[in-house]
Amino acid sequence: MTRATLDETDEVVTKLREAAERLYEYDLYRTAFEKAELEPSDIDSIDQFRELPTMDAGDQADDVKSNPPFGSLVDPDDVVRCNLTPSPYMDHRMPVPATEDDIRRDEERLAEAYRLVGVTEDDVVLNTAGMMPYPFGWSIAGAAETIGATHIPMGPGNAEEQVQIIRDYDVTVVSGFPSFAQELATTADETLDGVDIVIGGGEPFTAIEGYREEVREAYGGDVTVVDNYGLSEVGFVGFESREEAGMHVFTDRVFPEVVDPETGELLERGEKGELVLTTLSPDSTPVLRYRTGDLTILEKRESEYGDYVLPQGVFGRVDSMKKVKGVKLYPDELTMYVAGVDELDHENLEIRLTRPKGTTDHVALTVAGDPDSVDREAFAGEVRSILNISMDELSIEPEFEATADGVVIDDR
Amino acid sequence: MTRATLDETDEVVTKLREAAERLYEYDLYRTAFEKAELEPSDIDSIDQFRELPTMDAGDQADDVKSNPPFGSLVDPDDVVRCNLTPSPYMDHRMPVPATEDDIRRDEERLAEAYRLVGVTEDDVVLNTAGMMPYPFGWSIAGAAETIGATHIPMGPGNAEEQVQIIRDYDVTVVSGFPSFAQELATTADETLDGVDIVIGGGEPFTAIEGYREEVREAYGGDVTVVDNYGLSEVGFVGFESREEAGMHVFTDRVFPEVVDPETGELLERGEKGELVLTTLSPDSTPVLRYRTGDLTILEKRESEYGDYVLPQGVFGRVDSMKKVKGVKLYPDELTMYVAGVDELDHENLEIRLTRPKGTTDHVALTVAGDPDSVDREAFAGEVRSILNISMDELSIEPEFEATADGVVIDDR
Repeated sequence: MTRATLDETDEVVTKLREAAERLYEYDLYRTAFEKAELEPSDIDSIDQFRELPTMDAGDQADDVKSNPPFGSLVDPDDVVRCNLTPSPYMDHRMPVPATEDDIRRDEERLAEAYRLVGVTEDDVVLNTAGMMPYPFGWSIAGAAETIGATHIPMGPGNAEEQVQIIRDYDVTVVSGFPSFAQELATTADETLDGVDIVIGGGEPFTAIEGYREEVREAYGGDVTVVDNYGLSEVGFVGFESREEAGMHVFTDRVFPEVVDPETGELLERGEKGELVLTTLSPDSTPVLRYRTGDLTILEKRESEYGDYVLPQGVFGRVDSMKKVKGVKLYPDELTMYVAGVDELDHENLEIRLTRPKGTTDHVALTVAGDPDSVDREAFAGEVRSILNISMDELSIEPEFEATADGVVIDDR
Repeated sequence: MTRATLDETDEVVTKLREAAERLYEYDLYRTAFEKAELEPSDIDSIDQFRELPTMDAGDQADDVKSNPPFGSLVDPDDVVRCNLTPSPYMDHRMPVPATEDDIRRDEERLAEAYRLVGVTEDDVVLNTAGMMPYPFGWSIAGAAETIGATHIPMGPGNAEEQVQIIRDYDVTVVSGFPSFAQELATTADETLDGVDIVIGGGEPFTAIEGYREEVREAYGGDVTVVDNYGLSEVGFVGFESREEAGMHVFTDRVFPEVVDPETGELLERGEKGELVLTTLSPDSTPVLRYRTGDLTILEKRESEYGDYVLPQGVFGRVDSMKKVKGVKLYPDELTMYVAGVDELDHENLEIRLTRPKGTTDHVALTVAGDPDSVDREAFAGEVRSILNISMDELSIEPEFEATADGVVIDDR
């Protein structure tokens, strides 16, 4: 079985070597080369490239702290825009600095992705992502205005007002958080049938079973609904075309790997694991084997938009992963699924892990909801299929309140 | 005494005639020419131009309602960005459509204004104006990024966080609402002494006596503090240079007149009245003798930045004007002044107008505040100088609560 990285071709290896040459110029990354006892010119295979150590958001944060305010990668003189994004590794937020070149390149890149989903200059794009202080809304603005569509910047919130705007301005494209797109549709009295395209991003979307169809139905059924993926710290990674067949990876921009979050071992195609990214394009703040913390699957599938896809987008964060009965359990996936079940309350959900003396792991799931209106058997089956393990106990309790300690309580 | 419009020169008359030719192409404005029985080519003096009737936000709103969604002026195919702004004439908001050309032109224009106040590519500009859905924040973004400064888009709110950002990112320019600039400075434990320039806009600022100096002191005294003026419906109108000597009018862009809000008669230079604007540049949504509803003064004063200034910016709205004892009373001006007096509460302020039988107007001012800590005599003098009339009664009451009916209660 092939491994979850791009296939080794001369082109890919050349790109990696060229990227390595660029990355080597940065002190932050030269250390990685020294650790691996590699020179950029040595890189003549993907395996050789993979001798370089992985890095993560903590390394980025350390670099920013040692080289305030933007870190060592970018010349502060060249920064023309700095968005800010929350980061657990910073006291405050993480800077997302961009040069003029970065901005133009990203605008063109996302415009191309929007074109492939069918957005043209005739469209009216409602931008429901914020621009302050996050970068998300700026991407949508750049894509829409580069295409020459009409861009209406609204940010999230005020669903009733935005429904009015969709009607008054003949909005054809809604772009932003998929949850808010859904809220708009449910807020409207009648179907928002002028909307042809819904573009989701900024949170897990197509990884959640049934979510895409729910959004589609909310907009009357006859609408293209796609998922996009990017990270503030890295930029755009993938986009769906109007075929809705998974997110095409910007392979001109990033080299993707999918690894076991525990061991760092490369996983096989189709296996769920942590996405690791290396910047291939000449961006001002590149990453080298950057562990995104996001859970995904990489597949190869020949298409006119590029041959590599994240077939279901992103499943959540790996940070919350737990090994249970030898299996990796990613509770985010369950939370996302439960969020889509009307009768259950995903904000009051708890998985309690215990190891009663002399036995193996014991897993108990409790979720707030109405036990009479949920098909327990079917729900238990869904949970098993999502988490890859069976619950030893499963309770649905009307008044259940989860503690503030997170979804998983590990009492082993 | 000269009248409050640009001096009549061949250049000005030519510009007006050229603008008239452009405006005549729009049905909305052709009506005005027909009413005045004028052809654009007839315009060979300012007086002739002034035979055209004035228009106001109500006409704009009617045009939008009859020609949804953007009104008749702009081809919807050319609109690439549409901000939205509150309007009393619309059920919802007023669209502020812009073409690619409008955006580029405005970015260049405001960048030039920012350069004149000393902003360079070395500056770090904190943008505290919002971009959703108003246009204000976009102007600042365009100016800062066009110059190549570092632009940090934060919007208003979260003063504590923004103080941290000012420190962490060595912010040198704070641009947005002056009241928020002041809030930032008062939120900070220590003087924000890295800030060199404060650019205010979006609300009355330098028209309020002492306000500029208060803001300057809040930033440690050694800081350039300037005022900018524009309207969502019209665009940029004036900017201050680092001389802080009043707002220079963009005379290449607008032809300003100052009229009596009651009669429409042109006022003399230095007299306070309603600003009326005509677009001289080839913008996609021009205005013709547009009554801004804003109260200002136009003066001539030779300078390298243009010879016409609004010496104190904008004093408030004319809508709330009342004739009292034959004098025009603009209560906004008083509210703004009181807002700057710590011992008084401008949110609980009332001017009650009565006309006791057989007498003339009687004016009673009541304001919430601590009577013992205010110099009544001095305060009465200030009120007289601001409103141009003496109060017949003046009370400062600790527990006073104004009604919700507005600042002026007219019981005559």
